[in-house]
Amino acid sequence: MYTASICTIGDEILIGQIVDTNSSHISRALNSLGIRTGKMLSIGDDKQSIISSLEQELRGNDIVITTGGLGPTKDDITKEALAELSDSQGSYIHQGQMEVIQRILKSRGIEMLDINRLQACVPDKCEIIVNKLGTAPIMVFRFDEKRFGHKCTLYTLPGVPFEAIGALEDIISDIKQHYSIGSITHGNIMIYGIAESALAKKIEKWEEALPKEMHLAYLPNLLTGVKLRLSIYGGDESSNEKRIREEFSKLNELIGDYIYSDKEDSLEGRIGSLLRGSGRTLCVAESCTGGEISHLITTVPGASEYYLGSVTSYSPNVKEKLLGVSHESIEKYGIVSSQVAAEMADGVRKLLGCTYSVSTTGWADSYGDKFEEAGTVWVGISGPRGTRTVRFNFKNKRAINIQRFAASALNELRKMIEEDDK
Amino acid sequence: MYTASICTIGDEILIGQIVDTNSSHISRALNSLGIRTGKMLSIGDDKQSIISSLEQELRGNDIVITTGGLGPTKDDITKEALAELSDSQGSYIHQGQMEVIQRILKSRGIEMLDINRLQACVPDKCEIIVNKLGTAPIMVFRFDEKRFGHKCTLYTLPGVPFEAIGALEDIISDIKQHYSIGSITHGNIMIYGIAESALAKKIEKWEEALPKEMHLAYLPNLLTGVKLRLSIYGGDESSNEKRIREEFSKLNELIGDYIYSDKEDSLEGRIGSLLRGSGRTLCVAESCTGGEISHLITTVPGASEYYLGSVTSYSPNVKEKLLGVSHESIEKYGIVSSQVAAEMADGVRKLLGCTYSVSTTGWADSYGDKFEEAGTVWVGISGPRGTRTVRFNFKNKRAINIQRFAASALNELRKMIEEDDK
Repeated sequence: MYTASICTIGDEILIGQIVDTNSSHISRALNSLGIRTGKMLSIGDDKQSIISSLEQELRGNDIVITTGGLGPTKDDITKEALAELSDSQGSYIHQGQMEVIQRILKSRGIEMLDINRLQACVPDKCEIIVNKLGTAPIMVFRFDEKRFGHKCTLYTLPGVPFEAIGALEDIISDIKQHYSIGSITHGNIMIYGIAESALAKKIEKWEEALPKEMHLAYLPNLLTGVKLRLSIYGGDESSNEKRIREEFSKLNELIGDYIYSDKEDSLEGRIGSLLRGSGRTLCVAESCTGGEISHLITTVPGASEYYLGSVTSYSPNVKEKLLGVSHESIEKYGIVSSQVAAEMADGVRKLLGCTYSVSTTGWADSYGDKFEEAGTVWVGISGPRGTRTVRFNFKNKRAINIQRFAASALNELRKMIEEDDK
Repeated sequence: MYTASICTIGDEILIGQIVDTNSSHISRALNSLGIRTGKMLSIGDDKQSIISSLEQELRGNDIVITTGGLGPTKDDITKEALAELSDSQGSYIHQGQMEVIQRILKSRGIEMLDINRLQACVPDKCEIIVNKLGTAPIMVFRFDEKRFGHKCTLYTLPGVPFEAIGALEDIISDIKQHYSIGSITHGNIMIYGIAESALAKKIEKWEEALPKEMHLAYLPNLLTGVKLRLSIYGGDESSNEKRIREEFSKLNELIGDYIYSDKEDSLEGRIGSLLRGSGRTLCVAESCTGGEISHLITTVPGASEYYLGSVTSYSPNVKEKLLGVSHESIEKYGIVSSQVAAEMADGVRKLLGCTYSVSTTGWADSYGDKFEEAGTVWVGISGPRGTRTVRFNFKNKRAINIQRFAASALNELRKMIEEDDK
């Protein structure tokens, strides 16, 4: 099995100003080829540490992929390091990349400067994969056994995430051309509404009985719950897929209530699958979640087929005026209450004329009121068979509470639609 | 100057299922003490690579902080590695952490299992900082010169982000107690609406004339623009602060139009500062941005003072019915047009009764219509002195376009409020 190392270059990551999201994209892509990422590391814009870190990684891995260190304002250090590492004797201008740079600057109405032109200038020991989405070319350095004791390849991706993701495909097909890639089979199921430790306990015996060659991973996420993944390396993919499905199907008895998808998915994605093509529509009334539920729903491509819109009623006044929440309910039960959540869900469903609606009203911060404590959300869900409400309480900070509130609301909506579909 | 290394442990990061956000929080906290993070790395749940990586990092750094590898379902490997690394001869139950575990499980109504109990069991060579927000204790291993050639300390943080961030403060005060920490002075300004390369060109001479001991960093972000940071290590903080301010003030002439804050801030944060205490209110009408603008506004603590709410009119029908956009405008100018953006901004301002409103209508995907091309957004801003619209076009993918649309809209709103305040 080939191994890889992913290395981000740039002080902005080391001083904590930027979160590195590229490495996870890259390792997922490598993983899908059966290439194991053994290490990820971040180093600063310093020539000596770039050289020594990359040498160490190339010595220990078949493939090393860097991201960053190649912006127009800080090209020099990284390119000097790469030239030294590869024993390049000079540099050349790559015409294909130069054309992209010209096109991009022109489309933005920006004048071509020397620092832009220099981006197409690369060490002579590298091949180039043209970066079609940005100005920094992807450099490919191929090393034979003499240099690091084994054949290995260094790829340099730009740091800007959409450019890195865009060029990743080209790197993957280059790897496929130059390495003999074996198969890897993954299967996933998605689980929401149960803590990781309780889940582990419930499926303990199932896990112990798994065939040795199947690898299980727990992959928890605030918004999508726990993803359980089974993987098999090598072998025939379609028979492996079937075997993984068989193992997962045994979980229906143990934790069926919590499983919301038998493939990699999100709650809003699952809701989209349920609604698409059914003629049913959806709308949202948010308060404490401030627009997050609506935003999540619209991250699903094609959401406009079933999603009509939302009202964020951040002030009580908007709840009354626009959603028709009664002043008496707010006074008597509190702004965070089952009654208000239900009236919000009913109100927005009537206002926008939808099949389903979901609402939230809660205290995301560290304070509550005389009716409800901090961290409480009331979720309302309304559909053709009626309206219901559910209460949740989380003990996290504001930003995390908002995400949990949103995910819990989407999960309740998902359950109602699935019940209606039974 | 002390150096640190941050190490995340866990296959879930290496296979790309989780993005590591802890490391950036940790390095920011270290940075504020003047401790330089020289490396970040991620390794898998493998005992030998945990031991050898941590040994290498301890040899080269004063402080090593790990996160992850300590969930209830995968405690063993990491703790075994730490026991071996520290020459621990046995383990003990930490009573303080056990009490937290009991409290947390009770509050969640979860039964205490053996895997929960084992989390309070730690190698005998470590001190414990109690993790008040979660079940995994923070272990502190102190090494003297004999072990790694110099005094160094290893801290283990949990992987769950809010627990890691919560415990970070305790680690920072432990570091302050055990190391003699020098000063570091940072100053920031925030810039929006100009590309990094154009910015670099505009301030080239200013940058060259900076005193040698001042370090400049460009920190670009999709939602907040470019942050320029000047840092000085050592010396008197208040006089350093003044010197940094003086250098930044020279930029007003060069790029004053793009500077929106003279401190670390976001566009929505700046808008909050402008509106808070002024009696003025704000509302939003979104279409293609789907709730993102509303969500961003409500991430600012205290937003409820000035933010009343929003309408996400994802369907044209909702634009007409709720916001009063005229059917004729949609037919004649297109759903993505200056006219519709203006009518949305006017409509929501009237509907919710606000001082200011901002609206978006655009094509975030790879298609447009006969009126406007893909990647175009029309932003409407309405205030006491009238309504205006601005057009933007970006060539990115859907998710990135949505973020750029939202940030551009917030920036136009910010400009209108500042003009009114002049």
